[in-house]
Amino acid sequence: MAQKPSIPKGTRDFNPEQVAKRNYIFNVVKKHFQQFGFQPIETPSFENYDTLMGKYGEEGDRLIFKILNSGDYLSKVDDALYASKDAVKMTSKISEKALRYDLTVPFARYVVQHQNEIEFPFKRYQIQPVWRADRPQKGRFREFFQCDADVVGSSSLFQEVELIQLYDAVFTDLKLEGVTIKINNRKILSGIAEVIGASDKLIDFTVALDKLDKIGEDKVKEEMLGKGIPQSGIDKLQPLFSLTGDFESQIESLKGILDTSEEGKKGIEELEFINNGITALQLETAKLQLDVTLARGLNYYTGAIFEVSAPENVKMGSIGGGGRYDDLTGIFGMKNVSGVGVSFGLDRIYLVLEELGLFPDTVTKSIDVLFINFGNTEALFCLKAIKTLRKEGVNAELYPDAAKMKKQMNHANKRNIPFVVLVGEQEMEANSFTLKNMQSGEQLKLNLEDLIKHLK
Amino acid sequence: MAQKPSIPKGTRDFNPEQVAKRNYIFNVVKKHFQQFGFQPIETPSFENYDTLMGKYGEEGDRLIFKILNSGDYLSKVDDALYASKDAVKMTSKISEKALRYDLTVPFARYVVQHQNEIEFPFKRYQIQPVWRADRPQKGRFREFFQCDADVVGSSSLFQEVELIQLYDAVFTDLKLEGVTIKINNRKILSGIAEVIGASDKLIDFTVALDKLDKIGEDKVKEEMLGKGIPQSGIDKLQPLFSLTGDFESQIESLKGILDTSEEGKKGIEELEFINNGITALQLETAKLQLDVTLARGLNYYTGAIFEVSAPENVKMGSIGGGGRYDDLTGIFGMKNVSGVGVSFGLDRIYLVLEELGLFPDTVTKSIDVLFINFGNTEALFCLKAIKTLRKEGVNAELYPDAAKMKKQMNHANKRNIPFVVLVGEQEMEANSFTLKNMQSGEQLKLNLEDLIKHLK
Repeated sequence: MAQKPSIPKGTRDFNPEQVAKRNYIFNVVKKHFQQFGFQPIETPSFENYDTLMGKYGEEGDRLIFKILNSGDYLSKVDDALYASKDAVKMTSKISEKALRYDLTVPFARYVVQHQNEIEFPFKRYQIQPVWRADRPQKGRFREFFQCDADVVGSSSLFQEVELIQLYDAVFTDLKLEGVTIKINNRKILSGIAEVIGASDKLIDFTVALDKLDKIGEDKVKEEMLGKGIPQSGIDKLQPLFSLTGDFESQIESLKGILDTSEEGKKGIEELEFINNGITALQLETAKLQLDVTLARGLNYYTGAIFEVSAPENVKMGSIGGGGRYDDLTGIFGMKNVSGVGVSFGLDRIYLVLEELGLFPDTVTKSIDVLFINFGNTEALFCLKAIKTLRKEGVNAELYPDAAKMKKQMNHANKRNIPFVVLVGEQEMEANSFTLKNMQSGEQLKLNLEDLIKHLK
Repeated sequence: MAQKPSIPKGTRDFNPEQVAKRNYIFNVVKKHFQQFGFQPIETPSFENYDTLMGKYGEEGDRLIFKILNSGDYLSKVDDALYASKDAVKMTSKISEKALRYDLTVPFARYVVQHQNEIEFPFKRYQIQPVWRADRPQKGRFREFFQCDADVVGSSSLFQEVELIQLYDAVFTDLKLEGVTIKINNRKILSGIAEVIGASDKLIDFTVALDKLDKIGEDKVKEEMLGKGIPQSGIDKLQPLFSLTGDFESQIESLKGILDTSEEGKKGIEELEFINNGITALQLETAKLQLDVTLARGLNYYTGAIFEVSAPENVKMGSIGGGGRYDDLTGIFGMKNVSGVGVSFGLDRIYLVLEELGLFPDTVTKSIDVLFINFGNTEALFCLKAIKTLRKEGVNAELYPDAAKMKKQMNHANKRNIPFVVLVGEQEMEANSFTLKNMQSGEQLKLNLEDLIKHLK
């Protein structure tokens, strides 16, 4: 192989600095997941073909990576089908497994499969890669991590309150101040559709409303008309377009609009409960905002809908989202298990922290100290000290060869190592170590005890 | 879907307890990797088909999971090939990507691809899953984690010394005392083959020798004879079968056997250097043992060969292994990059720790305290205290519904939660909390400050 090797499009190598930064985010998120009582599970990278297919719509089915059966996989294909050379039909015959497309369906499968071992309500988190055969583009990859926390088996609205607190705790800890947690409720959207006589066009209605931010009021109305929503209904929507003020005053306006819809009123009640909880508990750095245009995966959500936006000074889509779904496990035959969950958009959070310079310097530090190698005897003397330092929690390393001093110092500089230790014959005789600060150039002659103190 | 869903054979779901135990091992290993100056990288789960194929032998090629191309993948297969219905030939036409089979080939690919950004010597670690279409059996899975640490770009034997120290540090920290780190050297094996006139039968010779533990001396000799190694040569091996005593005395015997082989003498020199280093630095709980029958992936290794055995009271194969290879990156066209590395067998280490009861109790603790829910007002009062507790590092949770007391207490018991807090009207009025120890039954009435102190 003469040319330089490469990796499949849409995938990434992560170098040590990138892994360290990603782990920093993961560790902060995990810490708060655990403080909130969520427990980790992990599922296999590939699931049975039938577990995944048909769960994400036609487009989703196409984007699922299928794994080719092993052995003589063509022998199981009957001649008539083979003769048709139809890739779609062939796939289910030559593939029995497929790579995870998200964490939600595998989680639903997990809950149903292990229902007898699980103590409900079950609060789980899961941080694992997923794969999608999407066209790669800036910020969209074929392999990326999802990071989900869900509670199943509880319809208490305190879960929604807790999940908002969780978002606030994580982003506060990441020093990412000023995120907006937008909230809506499927029942509000259904209620509005009902009131304007478009209950049968709920999807069209919400898809159009969801675009308000992007295309503006006039275009939204145009699209609704085009989809067959009557002008009289659209007129009734007018107060929605001019919803302003804080959470409470928006709620008051909604009460006016929705006073004839039982479902709409239920949605308002839920929003009020959640808002009261958050008002009592307060948020540290995030703000909660009612956004009646928020729809996300509407077919999926049955109650609260969440979406988190990065601070306004950063141009970035949503960095998290979630909501309540009342029938997660129904697809696998287990009814009436209500769930609610949120996810964190790792890749985007990474980009935001990078843009705002919020990664702590310590994250990308490789080691604390490099011992310069002046020969085998000195090296062995150094390794003894290194062993002691490591036991004290100091990350230390010996340059492996007695290379030229300049080369070794360059190595320390290139790796951003803050200190080097020099041990020659003199130091060995005096049982001492010369510690050099690579930034200031300052040198100190220390015994082992003081060396430890300086480096800890 | 009426029947309970399942997962593909050879794969596993990990429940919270299992994830916690696995993470415990990962975290200990990572800590020491970092203390020794290794830095993490991550590579994509799938590589280009050509990157992996042909690197693991014919058997390996068969065991690699291939990913089906997206879209109308059959349209690219020409009619003649299609008509042959030959699965092997077809695969390269309908699959361009394959799941990682190990971490070594992707690492070699990474080093070559990023050679201009890497500062050598490069010490990397990598902990990621790999996939093999092997027949699943007890302890053998189709998806499992590998955990590797390698240094590339340094031929210093201090690396071997450090890697032995690393094994010792990790297993000592895991409280797994009494592991044996077996060491051999490819040059010793080559030297012996040379001395007995079987240089052209090096593989046959080492494969037979490797079985000494399992089948005994007579059977080994028989197998060698069968492979065409002359009786006169086998006679010369006799001292090898009776090698006893410590490292030094075994080395002395080897010197006698190998005095006519330059390569053999080089091997002895290397072993002596490593042993001298370890003697000077000492091992905490592991022991280093020379084992001239150790061969492992011989074609691969060019110098030291390592294998770690679990303590003698546990029946388990090797829990780690590695060695020196002088041409890791040659397969991708980058010559003369020497490497040496070790790996940790996560699944087996897990089983050993489980068998010996070495997982700390704290590993599987879910949360520290559950707040019992007596109604919305009490719940909100509790959530305020919970928020404070979490800030203090306590993992705390509210039972989400005002369910019957017994049900809530059962939930705490089933999840092994050590404490519950009860807050009724009385407590709210007095701004206090009743803390109950679930093991002893003891109850204390505390203010928030004392509650924090008790739970921290």
